[in-house]
Amino acid sequence: MDVELNPGEQIDDLQFRGLHIIQDSRAFRFGTDSVILAGFAEARPGETGVDLCSGNAVLPLLASKRTGAHFYAVELQKRAADLARRSVAMNGMEADVEVLEADISEAPSLLKGVKVDLVTVNPPYEKAGSGFESGSEEIRIARHEVACTLEDVLRVASKLLQTGGRFYMVHRASRLAEVISGMTAVRIEPKTVRLVQSEAGKPPFLILVKGVKDARPGCTVPENLIIQYGDGRYTEEMDRIYHKHG
Amino acid sequence: MDVELNPGEQIDDLQFRGLHIIQDSRAFRFGTDSVILAGFAEARPGETGVDLCSGNAVLPLLASKRTGAHFYAVELQKRAADLARRSVAMNGMEADVEVLEADISEAPSLLKGVKVDLVTVNPPYEKAGSGFESGSEEIRIARHEVACTLEDVLRVASKLLQTGGRFYMVHRASRLAEVISGMTAVRIEPKTVRLVQSEAGKPPFLILVKGVKDARPGCTVPENLIIQYGDGRYTEEMDRIYHKHG
Repeated sequence: MDVELNPGEQIDDLQFRGLHIIQDSRAFRFGTDSVILAGFAEARPGETGVDLCSGNAVLPLLASKRTGAHFYAVELQKRAADLARRSVAMNGMEADVEVLEADISEAPSLLKGVKVDLVTVNPPYEKAGSGFESGSEEIRIARHEVACTLEDVLRVASKLLQTGGRFYMVHRASRLAEVISGMTAVRIEPKTVRLVQSEAGKPPFLILVKGVKDARPGCTVPENLIIQYGDGRYTEEMDRIYHKHG
Repeated sequence: MDVELNPGEQIDDLQFRGLHIIQDSRAFRFGTDSVILAGFAEARPGETGVDLCSGNAVLPLLASKRTGAHFYAVELQKRAADLARRSVAMNGMEADVEVLEADISEAPSLLKGVKVDLVTVNPPYEKAGSGFESGSEEIRIARHEVACTLEDVLRVASKLLQTGGRFYMVHRASRLAEVISGMTAVRIEPKTVRLVQSEAGKPPFLILVKGVKDARPGCTVPENLIIQYGDGRYTEEMDRIYHKHG
């Protein structure tokens, strides 16, 4: 493809209907968690979704291409939003994915108070000041709750969602209780909680949670998602998740 | 053993240091969930625990014998409390397990406001009016939230626990979100969440949750507990849980 790249950038094949994405070797690369979340999120053509903390917009690219829903990709950081915009253009998806370079708290007013069908988010996993904080401010903001906390994300998601609207989040397993309590506090009722293991015999390291705005309590807990076999090959379910996209 | 039994009662061997229990074929029989919870709860000699919704007191019998902690067994229903008292006496454990025939809401005042080290509970799983409600009032109270709701249980547990005190609960997987949000609401922070499967390849049907009063957020999510192999034999971990008691 004929796309101008900045130093440190590369184009990766998303292996789904010709989708490509511009990645940055330093700060803004997507992980398996975004792909899993894109496979977990349900949407239909004509629906509107908002992806918060969108990074280089890998989730809305995959999810919009697969489902036909329209997505807003909200990303605070200038360079990530720029990568996202160029990836959207490179794929000719300007009508499908709209990048909003903004703090997530501005999203409801940028959408003029219009309520949406679904919100997706792969937020910063670490509390500010906890664990190893990278020296790069960009990585710090992407990985730590510096620019937005879990509570911020949930409050904004609740504001954006219409009654019955769906919320899809991936997070660290260690944050499970905070995620669930926090969702309940903003009237996004957890309806599906799924644990994710890297392989069989290892403790879950991620959670996938689906919530529904103003729904009744009661949740489904499916079998854990296991990412790979001991030899490093993807499990059949992961193959299906990638196949769903690819 | 020379114990007088009422019609419909039998004595079962708990297969742990000679412990036996009086069961009732109609309403008050313990299940695997109580044994799992007894294995999940941690206690030390000299500590004081309260088991809420105690039924025939199988949990405090097992847990007190194993750990050396003293337990109060709080049970509302006259006939279950009577079974519990006779089982305690039959095992010569009157100094270790004290049966309080009372509504759980009375437990804090019955304990004269003294705070305890741990609370355990295998509560009624079903919401009142949901699912199949047995014709027997006794079974209905034991299985449905007729006499006490999840919120009641959590509020009482929080009142009973000292700062840093531990809370151990088993519940239906479908109530996961309510359990976690409810614990947080009464300042019992969920610190361990473990899913329980009947066998590999089946979705989790129970959860084990450990909470700590007034602790900081952040929880451990161990590997799921699997009860049996496809052929019905207990898994090695379940053998260890029974062995812990036996």
